[in-house]
Amino acid sequence: MNLIRPGQWIPEYWLQNKLLRALRTAVGPAPIRLRISGLAEQYNPELRLPEICIADCLTAAKLLLNTELEFGDAYSDRRIEVRGDLISTLRLLYESPGIHGFWPRLAAALQKVTHGQSIRRARNNARQHYSLDTDFYRAWLDRALVYTCAYFPEPSVSLEAAQEAKLDLVCRKLWLQSGERVVEAGCGWGALALYMAAHYGVTVRAFNVCEQQIDVAKECAKRLGLERQVEFIHDDYRNIQGKYDVFVSVGMLEHVGKAHYEELGNLIRRAIGNVGRGLLHFIGRGKKGNLSPWTQKRIFPGAYVPALSEVLPILEQWRFTVLDIENLRLHYARTLEEWLSRYEKNFESVTSRYGMSFARMWRLYLAGSAAAFQTGSLQLFQITFAGNKCAEVPWSRAYLYRGERPTGSQQWTTAMY
Amino acid sequence: MNLIRPGQWIPEYWLQNKLLRALRTAVGPAPIRLRISGLAEQYNPELRLPEICIADCLTAAKLLLNTELEFGDAYSDRRIEVRGDLISTLRLLYESPGIHGFWPRLAAALQKVTHGQSIRRARNNARQHYSLDTDFYRAWLDRALVYTCAYFPEPSVSLEAAQEAKLDLVCRKLWLQSGERVVEAGCGWGALALYMAAHYGVTVRAFNVCEQQIDVAKECAKRLGLERQVEFIHDDYRNIQGKYDVFVSVGMLEHVGKAHYEELGNLIRRAIGNVGRGLLHFIGRGKKGNLSPWTQKRIFPGAYVPALSEVLPILEQWRFTVLDIENLRLHYARTLEEWLSRYEKNFESVTSRYGMSFARMWRLYLAGSAAAFQTGSLQLFQITFAGNKCAEVPWSRAYLYRGERPTGSQQWTTAMY
Repeated sequence: MNLIRPGQWIPEYWLQNKLLRALRTAVGPAPIRLRISGLAEQYNPELRLPEICIADCLTAAKLLLNTELEFGDAYSDRRIEVRGDLISTLRLLYESPGIHGFWPRLAAALQKVTHGQSIRRARNNARQHYSLDTDFYRAWLDRALVYTCAYFPEPSVSLEAAQEAKLDLVCRKLWLQSGERVVEAGCGWGALALYMAAHYGVTVRAFNVCEQQIDVAKECAKRLGLERQVEFIHDDYRNIQGKYDVFVSVGMLEHVGKAHYEELGNLIRRAIGNVGRGLLHFIGRGKKGNLSPWTQKRIFPGAYVPALSEVLPILEQWRFTVLDIENLRLHYARTLEEWLSRYEKNFESVTSRYGMSFARMWRLYLAGSAAAFQTGSLQLFQITFAGNKCAEVPWSRAYLYRGERPTGSQQWTTAMY
Repeated sequence: MNLIRPGQWIPEYWLQNKLLRALRTAVGPAPIRLRISGLAEQYNPELRLPEICIADCLTAAKLLLNTELEFGDAYSDRRIEVRGDLISTLRLLYESPGIHGFWPRLAAALQKVTHGQSIRRARNNARQHYSLDTDFYRAWLDRALVYTCAYFPEPSVSLEAAQEAKLDLVCRKLWLQSGERVVEAGCGWGALALYMAAHYGVTVRAFNVCEQQIDVAKECAKRLGLERQVEFIHDDYRNIQGKYDVFVSVGMLEHVGKAHYEELGNLIRRAIGNVGRGLLHFIGRGKKGNLSPWTQKRIFPGAYVPALSEVLPILEQWRFTVLDIENLRLHYARTLEEWLSRYEKNFESVTSRYGMSFARMWRLYLAGSAAAFQTGSLQLFQITFAGNKCAEVPWSRAYLYRGERPTGSQQWTTAMY
């Protein structure tokens, strides 16, 4: 309802009206209704558009100055409310051409500050996100606590099955052979390391800077009787020593920071020489750029989401051969929808334990990420690679889709070269 | 046999001996026997090593100064002979660490001269390689005259079947729908364009600067009754106009030249907007670098073989989404072995028509390329991509390996987003 009568000048409404118009210019033609306090844009009420309700003029003004950061913070503090489906409303915002224009230099500046990733800072950054009580994650992740993109062979598969399918896909892409030595950089709660050991008979050394996750992983290894096959190490990936057949890293590259890519390449080369194999699984984007300032500041300090062209020199500097790159964007969108739907069921208990502001921040992060993968502003890449003297590589990728194990297959035996 | 007796100083043998030693240093420990005129390195004769026989000291000296160019030229002129399997001998040379060290700046200089690809120069460069009599190519290509890497579902499949499998793989990767408009940049003798039209019901505009190839393609379209569906155009890809659903280019990027990558990206964007799909199929390498000076000078003037990190900005500048990258290196090695084996069967007739020097040059080019793909100094990449607003993308790659057509499949219907 627009309460201003023609000719009447009321300072508060005048200001709200100005701010509403400026916000509309930023949002563009997206079918979203905007409201500041009592004042809403007029839209045909039958359209049942989603509505973004902004509590006051100060929030609206801050939103205009630093859109992404203020939207996140104000949503967390309930100074912004979204009426309608959160994911699809955010998607509409992402797709507005004007919305990302404000203060992009702030993001670049933040980038500079947070990217000199000393081992200590990396530890603090990772801790900030990953060291919440494990029960918090249990409430919305799958049983095996896999906090990375799942792989849904069919879109209808359950999250648990899809996470297991992802673990197995990674093992098959790496054509693990019983008895091989694997090193994992950034192992979370250990699901992949344990899966590899249990199902492919390899030994694994798995690194993680987050102590609480390592403790859970160690317990789990003990429970499964895999302590001799899987060693969980509470340390930074940069301290990886020793020689391995396989290097794997799922969901860690985002935290490495671009300044350390060359160092990561050197580490991989030291670990697997020019004969081993490897897999990098990471969130990427279609074009070089920075994460939103809010994500940078509140969710993943020090994170950088690279374009493929930025990642490949990690491998090219040592002439690793890229065998295969798969984009699993739609699978991450689906994964995040699953996580959010489980999270919503536990929203009350998260609120009572961590407070409303935290609970809403996390909801926005999950919904915003789902929207970003739906619209393609984020991508998920799996790069499979091998040393340039790796003696055997798969003849084709067909075996990945036949449920075949690498060994024993006619198709498999390959480079006679 | 070493004919020098101790103590006896014969200038010619002294020189041969010095040159042999210098060549051995360059070749390193590779199990190859070297010979200059009468003088050969001593190796256990039971080892039956391949032998490189150099006709005279002048050739040997030139070989030391500009290894790759002189090796190619001297082999063509029969001043060098290789005794033993040509591909595997070349492979041993490629793998010698010292062999690529000589005068690499020459290659870089050549690069500079040949890379300012004006449309006219591009035309001349392409003509030089592709405008030989079609019968020359018929003698060793498959029936459909596909002069790019084949795809062997099993290593034992015939070349004809493998080329057809490649054409179909490209169509499936692009999930062509009947009635769609496709533009092809660099169409050779038209096999892909005709296959797409005949088997997937699309209309194709296919560009090629080489008139002889276009003439053959047009005839073929007429014979197949596809003239209304496929339009072959004798023109540079840079003159592509109009709007299409799909952009495809198989084996042309190598000839584009790095200086024109940005322009190519702009062209793709103009052609398919931000909603179309595309595929780039090209020879790449593990690390930035130049082709050998011989290949540059004698085989593919103006060609540049890029690393993946050099190609991706073509797509990233317009936020095209990379959906899939496959490396078909082993398939190109196999394709080249097939071509060489057919070529050898026609060696006499090529010699009598084009002369010994040409016939041997082409043999070396085929064998050298096979060795390069075997050892991984060359790679073959297929990049599938889509505009960032492409409404439907495949849910997973599984359909590629089920022999399924994109349409009608449950799996297929995807982005509900």
